[in-house]
Parts: sequence; C-alpha cells; structure tokens
Amino acid sequence: MDLLQTYKKVRQHSEVLAAPLIPEDFSIQPAIFVSPPKWHLAHTTWFWEQFVLLPFSKNYKVYDEDFAYLFNSYYNNVGKRVLRPDRGNMTRPGVDAVMRYRAYVDNAMQQFLQTPITPEAAHVIAIGLNHEEQHQELFLYDIKYILGHQPTFPAYSNTAPFLKPGKKDTGFIALPEGIYEIGYTGDSFCFDNELGRHKVYLQDFEIADRLVTNREYLEFIHEGGYQDFNLWHDDGWHWKQDNDLKAPLYWHFIEEEWYEYDLNGLQYLDPDAPVKHVSFYEAAAYAAWKKMRLPTEAEWEAASGHFSWGSLWEWTNSAYLPYPGFNKAPGALGEYNGKFMVNTMVLRGASVATPENHSRSSYRNFFYPDMRWQYAGIRLAKDKI
Amino acid sequence: MDLLQTYKKVRQHSEVLAAPLIPEDFSIQPAIFVSPPKWHLAHTTWFWEQFVLLPFSKNYKVYDEDFAYLFNSYYNNVGKRVLRPDRGNMTRPGVDAVMRYRAYVDNAMQQFLQTPITPEAAHVIAIGLNHEEQHQELFLYDIKYILGHQPTFPAYSNTAPFLKPGKKDTGFIALPEGIYEIGYTGDSFCFDNELGRHKVYLQDFEIADRLVTNREYLEFIHEGGYQDFNLWHDDGWHWKQDNDLKAPLYWHFIEEEWYEYDLNGLQYLDPDAPVKHVSFYEAAAYAAWKKMRLPTEAEWEAASGHFSWGSLWEWTNSAYLPYPGFNKAPGALGEYNGKFMVNTMVLRGASVATPENHSRSSYRNFFYPDMRWQYAGIRLAKDKI
Amino acid sequence: MDLLQTYKKVRQHSEVLAAPLIPEDFSIQPAIFVSPPKWHLAHTTWFWEQFVLLPFSKNYKVYDEDFAYLFNSYYNNVGKRVLRPDRGNMTRPGVDAVMRYRAYVDNAMQQFLQTPITPEAAHVIAIGLNHEEQHQELFLYDIKYILGHQPTFPAYSNTAPFLKPGKKDTGFIALPEGIYEIGYTGDSFCFDNELGRHKVYLQDFEIADRLVTNREYLEFIHEGGYQDFNLWHDDGWHWKQDNDLKAPLYWHFIEEEWYEYDLNGLQYLDPDAPVKHVSFYEAAAYAAWKKMRLPTEAEWEAASGHFSWGSLWEWTNSAYLPYPGFNKAPGALGEYNGKFMVNTMVLRGASVATPENHSRSSYRNFFYPDMRWQYAGIRLAKDKI
Amino acid sequence: MDLLQTYKKVRQHSEVLAAPLIPEDFSIQPAIFVSPPKWHLAHTTWFWEQFVLLPFSKNYKVYDEDFAYLFNSYYNNVGKRVLRPDRGNMTRPGVDAVMRYRAYVDNAMQQFLQTPITPEAAHVIAIGLNHEEQHQELFLYDIKYILGHQPTFPAYSNTAPFLKPGKKDTGFIALPEGIYEIGYTGDSFCFDNELGRHKVYLQDFEIADRLVTNREYLEFIHEGGYQDFNLWHDDGWHWKQDNDLKAPLYWHFIEEEWYEYDLNGLQYLDPDAPVKHVSFYEAAAYAAWKKMRLPTEAEWEAASGHFSWGSLWEWTNSAYLPYPGFNKAPGALGEYNGKFMVNTMVLRGASVATPENHSRSSYRNFFYPDMRWQYAGIRLAKDKI
Repeated sequence: MDLLQTYKKVRQHSEVLAAPLIPEDFSIQPAIFVSPPKWHLAHTTWFWEQFVLLPFSKNYKVYDEDFAYLFNSYYNNVGKRVLRPDRGNMTRPGVDAVMRYRAYVDNAMQQFLQTPITPEAAHVIAIGLNHEEQHQELFLYDIKYILGHQPTFPAYSNTAPFLKPGKKDTGFIALPEGIYEIGYTGDSFCFDNELGRHKVYLQDFEIADRLVTNREYLEFIHEGGYQDFNLWHDDGWHWKQDNDLKAPLYWHFIEEEWYEYDLNGLQYLDPDAPVKHVSFYEAAAYAAWKKMRLPTEAEWEAASGHFSWGSLWEWTNSAYLPYPGFNKAPGALGEYNGKFMVNTMVLRGASVATPENHSRSSYRNFFYPDMRWQYAGIRLAKDKI
Repeated sequence: MDLLQTYKKVRQHSEVLAAPLIPEDFSIQPAIFVSPPKWHLAHTTWFWEQFVLLPFSKNYKVYDEDFAYLFNSYYNNVGKRVLRPDRGNMTRPGVDAVMRYRAYVDNAMQQFLQTPITPEAAHVIAIGLNHEEQHQELFLYDIKYILGHQPTFPAYSNTAPFLKPGKKDTGFIALPEGIYEIGYTGDSFCFDNELGRHKVYLQDFEIADRLVTNREYLEFIHEGGYQDFNLWHDDGWHWKQDNDLKAPLYWHFIEEEWYEYDLNGLQYLDPDAPVKHVSFYEAAAYAAWKKMRLPTEAEWEAASGHFSWGSLWEWTNSAYLPYPGFNKAPGALGEYNGKFMVNTMVLRGASVATPENHSRSSYRNFFYPDMRWQYAGIRLAKDKI
Repeated sequence: MDLLQTYKKVRQHSEVLAAPLIPEDFSIQPAIFVSPPKWHLAHTTWFWEQFVLLPFSKNYKVYDEDFAYLFNSYYNNVGKRVLRPDRGNMTRPGVDAVMRYRAYVDNAMQQFLQTPITPEAAHVIAIGLNHEEQHQELFLYDIKYILGHQPTFPAYSNTAPFLKPGKKDTGFIALPEGIYEIGYTGDSFCFDNELGRHKVYLQDFEIADRLVTNREYLEFIHEGGYQDFNLWHDDGWHWKQDNDLKAPLYWHFIEEEWYEYDLNGLQYLDPDAPVKHVSFYEAAAYAAWKKMRLPTEAEWEAASGHFSWGSLWEWTNSAYLPYPGFNKAPGALGEYNGKFMVNTMVLRGASVATPENHSRSSYRNFFYPDMRWQYAGIRLAKDKI
Repeated sequence: MDLLQTYKKVRQHSEVLAAPLIPEDFSIQPAIFVSPPKWHLAHTTWFWEQFVLLPFSKNYKVYDEDFAYLFNSYYNNVGKRVLRPDRGNMTRPGVDAVMRYRAYVDNAMQQFLQTPITPEAAHVIAIGLNHEEQHQELFLYDIKYILGHQPTFPAYSNTAPFLKPGKKDTGFIALPEGIYEIGYTGDSFCFDNELGRHKVYLQDFEIADRLVTNREYLEFIHEGGYQDFNLWHDDGWHWKQDNDLKAPLYWHFIEEEWYEYDLNGLQYLDPDAPVKHVSFYEAAAYAAWKKMRLPTEAEWEAASGHFSWGSLWEWTNSAYLPYPGFNKAPGALGEYNGKFMVNTMVLRGASVATPENHSRSSYRNFFYPDMRWQYAGIRLAKDKI
C-alpha cells in the first residue's frame, strides 16, 4: 500500500473508533492517566501539523494557533502545554470543531503526500502513523475506563475487540543458556528504544506457551492471594492495601457471581479467557504464588518465536531501561521514549486492541507497575531446575 | 399567574439558560463545588418526580429508576446517591436523554396541575419552584466557572446578566440602638430558615448605601491588602497563601492591564462596577483595611429598606445559625437547610443572576467563607463613634 | 497576693506540670494541633521576654536571639516564626536548655517586678499571666494526646485532674424572654473578646442543670447515633465518616468492655462521670437525638448563675464572632483573639484542667467544631414549648 | 577475630554513634523515610532477640513482649508492627529504657556466643551483624537529616566521617565487549541478592576513574541544569518541580555563598570534594548534561578493580531486579531484599558512613530514585565511540 493509502487508512480508523460515542463522552477525564477521547483525535492531528506540515509542506497555514497549545501532550520542547490533569475540563473546542480540524489537516496531508517526499519527511511520517496507532489503542483503554466507571455500565460497541478462550493445557518451552541477540533487525519502522540490536547472555529458562486464564487467577483469589504479603512486592502490597483491591480492574462480584465490564457492557466472567487488566504487582504476585516468575524481556524476545502472542500485552520482570548505545533523538521527538526510562516496567507482545501490524517481537511497551487499564496479561516463566 | 403558568415559566427558564451550551459543556465538573450543567437540569426534574408526582399524582409511572439514583443531590434520606465529586465523570445519560426526561416529567406535572391541588401538595410545589430557581442561579455560577477556566475563555452569551456601574459617592445610613424584629413576615413562600420572626437587640450602627467598587478594591490590592496578615482572619490568610491569591476570582492581569472574565468573555475591568466574586475572607479583609466591618445579618435586614440591593449577594459577618425555635422539617426536605448551619456565613440580598422575585429582605443565603464563584460583593458597616 | 508572688506561683505551676515527663516526651508533635510540651515552656517564657522585659525593663539582655525565632507562636508581627507543623521536628534546644532559659527570664522578671510597674506594663503582665495559664491547660491536653496515642498507654500522673461523677437526675432551669446583658463587667483582668458588655434579646428557653454523662452518651451510641445522618450537620457527618469515628476521643472498646484513656492510664469507663472529649459535631448530634439543642453563648451566660460549672468546657451553638464594638488591639497582641473569629465555635465555663481562678462566666473559649482533644462536654438546652 | 569479639565490637559501635545525642534527638521522625535514632538501637536489638536468642538459645526469657511489637520494622511475618509513619510519635520507652534493653540482650548474647554455635545459628548471626552495620549507616543518615533540618543547624560531632577532596583530573577506563561474570564469589558473608554469580554480556564501554566533584556539579547548576527538562527523566522533572529543587540536599545559598550542612555543622562548600546527597534523578540529569550516562551495575562490578571506591555510594542506571535463580529465603528473613525489587535503583560501592569491611564489589545497595539523604554520588560512564 502506498503512503497516501496508508495515511488515509490509519486516519480513518481513528474516526471509526470514535463513531459509537456521544459528544459528552469526548471531554471527560475520570483519572489522571486517562485522556479525554476528543483529545486523542485532536492531538494526533496536531502531531501531523506540527511535525510534518509545518516543517515540510510549503505554504501550509496553521489551522488555529490555540490548538497547538491545547493539544500538545508531553512535548515540553513545543510550547506551553495544557497540564494533563486539566485536559478533562476543556469542553471547547467541542468534538465537532475537532472533526473540522481533522478534515483540514487531512486535506493538507493528502495534498502533501502527492508531492515528492524526502527521506527525512518519510521518517517523521512513519513516526506519525505509528503514533496515531498508539493513540488508537489508548483511545480504547480510555473509553473503556470512562464507560466502565459509570453507574449504569453503558456498552461501547458489540463489535469491539474481545478475547477468545485459548488452549486449556499449558506447556513450557525450554531455552538453553547462552548468547542471544535482541533488538530490532530489519528495515521497516521501529521505535528508537528497540534499536541497537545487541548480545545478551541468558541462563537456562522455561517459558509458558499460553497466558494465565481467569479460572487460574480466580484460584489465586480464592486461596487468599490478595491477603498474603509474602507474595507481593512491598510497593505492590501498599498499593493493594491503599486501594483495597481484591480482583483485576473491571471485575465485579454481584450476588455471588463474577462479572467483568467489557466494551460490550457488563458480562459474566469467562473462566477460559486470559486474565486481563492486571497490574505488574498483581502479575508478579500471581507468579510468586505459582512459585514461578515473570520472564525478562530478553527471555521473552528470545523465545517469542515458539509461542503465539497478541491477545494481551505481557508483563515482564524487566525495568524499562535504555539498550546499550541508546541515543535520544534531538528536539521534541527525543521526548518520545527516553524520558520514561525509570520506574516503568516493560510489556511485550501486542493486544486485541493493538492496530494490525503495529507491533513486533522487538517492540518495547512500558507502563508504571500499578497501571492496569491497559490490556495486560500474564505469561509465566521459571528457572531450569 | 396561576400555578400551571408559573410552573411552565420556571421550567422553561431553565432551558433558556441551557440553550447557549454545546453538549460537551454539560457533563463537566472542574471543581468539587461545581455541578455539571446537565446535572442541574436532571436533578430539578427528579425533585418534581420524587416529591410531587410520586406522592401526590395517582398512577404516575417513574421515567427511569436509574435516574432517581443518578440525580439525587444531598438528600441522604432518598436512596444511595452519586457522590458529588463523581458527578463530573457521568457522561451517560447525555443531555439529549435528560431533555427527554424533562419533557416526560413536564407533561405529567402539567396534567397534574390541572387537577385539584391539596394544600400539602401546594406547599411542596412552592418549594419545587423555589428549588428550581435556586438551581438556575447555581447553573449560571457553574457555567461561568466551567467556561471561565478554559484556556480560550469562551463566552456564554452576550445577553447574560451583567452588572452596571452604580453611584460614585457613598453615604452611610445610621440606625439607632434598640429592639428590631427580623425573620419572614407575610403569607407567601419562604424557606424554613427565615421563619420564627423574633426580636433582636442592636447597638447603634451605620451601613453604606452602595457596594464597594472595583476601583476601590483595586486600591486595596495596590496598597498591599493581600500581603498584610493583620487584615485577615487566620484561616483566610492561610487560604490566600495556600492558593497564592492576589485578586478576586476571574480577574486576570495581562500585559499591564486588568481584565475580568464574564459571561460574555474576557473584558476590561470596569472600575465603577461593584467588585464581585470575592470570598468572605476577602470581604472581611477589605473592610478591616477600611477600618470598618461587614454588617451582621440582623443589621442588614433592619436597614434593608434604606438602600437598594440586588446586583450582588452581600457577605455579612454572621455565621449561618438557626433562628430561635428553628425546627427541621421531617424527612428528606428537612435536609434542605438545617444541616448546613455550621462553618458557613450568611449572605443577604440577591444578585443579577437571581431569578426575578426569588429573593426578599429576610432571605438567608449562605456559603463557606472561602467560596467565591457565586455573585458576591461587599457592603461596609461601622459602629457609631 | 502581690504581683511578684502571683508571677512566681504561675511560673512554678508550669514546671510542676512538666515534672512527670521524660525528655523524649517534650519534643513530639503527633498532630498538627498539638504543640510539643517543651514548646509551651519556652513560648510562655518568650512571651515575658518579648512583651514585658524588652519593652519595659531597662538594660534587659536577650537570652538568645534564636529563641525569639524558635518560640514565637502565631504572632506574625514579631518576626519569622517556625511553622506550626515543624515544631515537632525541633529537638534542639533540649528541655534542659529550655529550663535554663526559664530560669534566666524568671530572674530578670523577679527583679523587674520589684521595681515600680507602670499601668501599661501591668496590663501586659496580666495578659502574660493569663497567657501562661492558657498554655498550662493546653499543656495537659497535649501531653494527654501524646501519651494517649502510644501503643502502651503510659500514664502521666495519678494525681492529675480527674472528673467526679455528678448528680444523677437532670432538671431544667427556665429563663423568660427579654433583654439580658452579657460581656465582662468588673475591674479585674479579662480578654478583649469579652469586652463591650451589651444587651441581647433572648426568647424563652430552658437549660439543663448538669452535663450529659457517659451512660447517657453510651445510649446514643448503642441506639445508632453515629449511623443516623439526620442527626448530624453535613460537615459533621463527613468528618465522622472520613475518620471512621464511633465514640469520643480516648474511648477504646476492648474485649467487650469500654475503657477510657485518662492521664492515669487506661481505665474502665465511669458511666456516671460527664462525657468528655467530644467535638461540637458530636455534641450537636447528641442534642438532636435528644430532640433538644445546645445553648447559645448568650443563654449560657444569662443562666450561668443558676447551675454549677467547671468540670468541662461546654460547647455552645454560637459561632465565635466579635461583640459589638470589638476592636483588635494594635500590634502583636491584637493577634490574640480577633483573627480566629471565623469557623470556630464558642465554649463556655471551665474544666478541671483550667488553672484556678482563670475563668469566669463571661469567658469565651473557642475551638474548631471538629476538635476534641480539649476537655469539652455537653449541656442541653431547649426552647420553651 | 572470634564471633564474640566481633559481636561486642559491632554492638559497641552502635552506642558510640549514639553518644553525641541528647534524649530529645532519639524520638523524632521528620520524614517518612527517616527512623528515630532510638528505634535503630532498639530494632537491631530486637533482631538478635527474635532471630537468634528465641530460636537458638534455650531458656531465653523475652525482655518485654511489647518491644517485639514496637521495634519490628517491616517484617510482616513477625506480628503486628508499628507503622513506619508513627514511629516518630513513640516517646516511650525512652532511650534510657532502650539502653537497658540492649544491655539485657547483649548479656544473653554474650553468654550464648560462649556455647557451641550451630551452622544454622552462625548464618543468622552473620546476618544480624551485617544488619546492625546497615542500621549504623542509616543511623548517620537519619541523625544528619534530623539535625540538618533544624533552624539552628546543630553539629553532631567534629569527628564524624567526612569526605576528602580527591584527584583533580579524570581519566576513563575502557573495557572491551564480551562475557563477564558478576555476583558474589567467596565463602564469607554476602546477602542473598548478590548470589547466583552469572555471566553477562557487556558492550564496549568506558568508566571514569573518580567521582564528580562539587565544582563540576556547580557548573551544571550555573549553566541551567535544573531548568532544562531535556536533561531529566519525566518523573525526575516532576519531582524537581514539585519540590522546587535547585541543588543537592543540605546545600544552602546564603548571602551569595554556597554552604553545605555536614555532621560538623554548616560549612563552606568544598569545591574539590565529591558531590554528595544527590538523587538518581539528579545524577542521571548531570550525566545527560555531560553527554554521558551512569554505568550499569554489571559494568561497575566488571570495572571495579580498576578504580578506587568507597567515599560515596554510586548511582547506577540499573533497576534493582533479581539475579537469575534468585530465591527469597522462607519466612521473615525472606523479606529482607526480594520485596524491594521494583521501583528502586542500584547503588554500588560504599561510603565514608559505611562500617569498615561491610561492603564489597558485589554488594547491591538500592534506593528509590528520589532519595538523597543517603551518602550517594556520581561516577560517569560512556559508550565507546
């Protein structure tokens, strides 16, 4: 597919995701880590304007100077930004105005993409496409959080991405001690944090061939997993205690039955589907209870050809740190990844909410260890005995 | 005007106030003391359903059981309510659905009002009308706060209620020591907190015949009023320091000029208009700076026939406490006033945002001393020397 | 007793109160409203140095410039002060050093008091004595809080001031409607907030001739008083809920028995003693449950000759506000009372912790409505039916 | 030295450290991460009682049941503990009583150490000695924090451990790509987190032969290092902004001169001494400003034979995570290390506050990235170009 077609397809997908919402849904920010859906639609548009049209497209006229200010995210290098916790108080411009902004920028981009594109511009366009895809996934996390925290549990859509039950038995894949290579190899797009393919030395280990299921996680709950501090990291235990948690996010115990809020509304919990919306703390506690552990990201990548992945992002026991030789890009795009390389943990794989072809085995996703509104699950690993 | 016409007029006014908004504006709660505009429209409707239609109208069928739960305010006696800080996260039902709810209840009320009304029902209907009028005023406070705290300062309307400059010179009206009577007298509607007309003994005092102006308040600012702790209550000083305040709410100092956000957008500050959106702490500090004081509510009521009032609510130096013989009504309507009789201060008068004929000289409005999003101003008083 | 003897007696009493403590007790601040005991000893000494010796005693040499900075309390007018929440982190100077400071100042004061004293100095000395007596009472509140919140409940002393059971039956004293005078009259010392004796008009009312007992308060607890929001002020209810309160401060329910921590350690609750350590919110809720109310401060003062008082401070339903004609003293001593005249409620009477002859029927004590570490109890009142 | 002599020496050192304090200093907790000095003295004693005397010494009689409850730290497996933020409110038992507790346990331990010791007991004794040494270092951190945050900057001692200026020129040591082994090797004591010596694969890198100095760090400050968000991690930037930081802990800029509070009081900043009391965030920002980076812990360990270390703990860019094959010990001792393996960063080396012979090149110290009251400095590393 050529660049113009790809652009159209990616941009259109954002609007398809927005279609089931009412205007009120677009401006709300019920938690500090959630962005209002309207904001995603505008911010991705601003990215094209700021990083492609302004630098590369002659005579481009900015749609509205205010929007640059309003829809910048965390790019400290590009002007004063609206602080994250205040995003949800911004009702103007409304979603209709944001859609007009999208149309204006799309028009300019489509004209621009029919002119010769320099390699430098092509590089930023590739980032822009991947950036918009990342926001498409966050859009689903956020709208799920917004609707899933209302008293009436409204559904988003009946055709949203849902998880299927997987295989029932677990096998373990063993990899031998030795030198492995990790990091991106190839000549398509990847993020800067995947670069610097390099050797690592791994010890013998085994890794599960499927994710932990709701049934298995329920057993952990029933056997007191949330009450035994020996299973938890110290920070995890305090997080759990402070928030009085007893189950994954979106689980509800109503009249002696377990339900799960999903994008199609409140549903009976499917015991055979993979458990999702767990934090790193919960994933690690579950693994400790099984007397196993989470894989490191290097183990995961080394073994990733031997199992199927993609229904949920998988927590690893690796902190998100730079690969050897990592260099931040200069300027605003350098803020994309490097500055988050402390206090976050790596997730590998992809999820049913991830746009098609967006991920790969070297892809390094990352979240704070207490975050669980993202589509995250658990794959077990263990040392060879 | 008969009851049916009055009902229609009051109800319609709520919708007139809502007309300038876009759907996104209706669901937002940028501060804990602000309610989403949609909530006012639904809550006043719920009041009619709960306290008039259900008890008095035979065969009335509740519109939606969920709504009673969602749109109860602080009436602890009427079921579990949505906690105030969470109101702003409720995007569903949207404003369209709320308008359908209003139409349904209005239809039922209008039929009911064409049947014979018992005195008991008439009493609750009078409360309902005054209740909706109170919310109309709060609606304006809230929408002003919502729009006035956005980066682009959008206007609400160019025909909103605005203050006019008043007379320039101040006179003082002197009242002699003696016994006065305060409290409601008459046979129209009043709130329970005004009842129990009773004698009070006042000392000689004088009270200003107009409100303090922006020009006068600016002088207080320029002469260091916000920096001199001797002028402030201890709690007021800490409130000011913690919030780093230097001027009334909605004032902005931009490129060496003072502006004020008003319902028609950002405007030059009019020096001759009364100063508004000040807290009790600011009002008291200003009075201390003038070596005067605020009037008590009894002084205000005793003198109220001698000056004109109604552009702004006027802070008094009286705590909001029960009149002698005050009795809470039983049940949910008893929660209306009595439970707020601690930590709040009385304001007297009315404001340009108050619905016509809603207030009277015995009317006791009240807010916490740090609140200033309401239309509140300053009238000075002093002891006779 | 002459001034020198009075000075010695008052100063010595502070040290008698300090005698049972170990050095570690003196530097601790377990809550923001508690001051470290060492601080009381030093601050009262600083008061003599700052307001008597420096202005009136020729050639007085300040003991240590640092101490003025360290032991100022809330007198914003006298230099930079140590912020209240940080007082508890100040281990130096230790209590030994503070005692040397006391001795130095006492020596200077005793010499000074043997010289002719001007009326102006005599006035400040009277304030200083009353000031130190107030801190003696706070000293007991604070040391009770400090020891009573330790896991082992250590005793302070077996000869501390304790409450006796009182009379079992309650009578009500009726006073007729009319004009009464309140405020200080006489020519001894009083605080500025008592001055301006003035007429008030009271309605018919009745007031109890004794305080509510633990037995009566237990009945309120057992019948669900802490669970019925109709009895509480809105702010009181939230305070109770947020702090998960079920009984007065220092009450402990251990193995099916009620205990009370008192200055002699953990004791069985005496059902016939007056209930103490209740907040205004609890006092008001109790009164509402009895279908009565708390007296106003004017009612209390008007009736105070008809009942005995002095075992506990008694909450009134009056906010602490200025009397007509109240004027703050200029300078630092003007910060004594006036700046607290918002958000606080008046207590009248005296307590077993109050130094002898310190209080009188016009004395206006005041605390925030949620405070209960002071010795406060409940006297009921009601309107005449 | 035999076990008895070692025990005596270690125990005595704790008391030598305590000697310069006054009783008030022992009970204070000015920040949540600080423990009252008294608590260290009691807690280390409790460790001997709980883990050595009770399990291994026949007929040992517990000194006081309360103490087990009061002086447990974070060992969730050993009974209910006093929550960390409340430690500072516990004035009883006083430091005298704690010293009696120490004497009692020392007596029992010294008798026990003269009987045959099983290997199992010897293992726990070795942990106990190292545990007490760790607390000796924390004791210095805490007393520095306690005294260094008082208005008068009292000195702890003039013979405390101080840093010397080091060499002026920096060289870089280059190590070649390849397989290295890290982890403890030997047969003396080490902590469980150092075990599992294993191979790692390192890329070419260079590491500085000395620590960054105050002079160099001042240059970073003067050139705007604290104002340029491009140099900081996102969390680090917010931490810096929220706390309004402009320099390392204990630095004071007074009348145009830089001072540093040290254990001997406020001193002129020595430009040639290594910079200390910086957080990970500051260390990483400094390295970014130099266009270098911090070493990983594996790099540090591999190169540690080539430079001298020991004046300050050195921040690495490694998150504190388990080594391959790491297993928590069962029971309470298993809580020692493993549960902190998230959100913390590794420091390597030792400091002038570290007891002699306590550390080694495989030692893994760890702190949260915002902590800086520990003796921590900066060593630079860089990739080979």
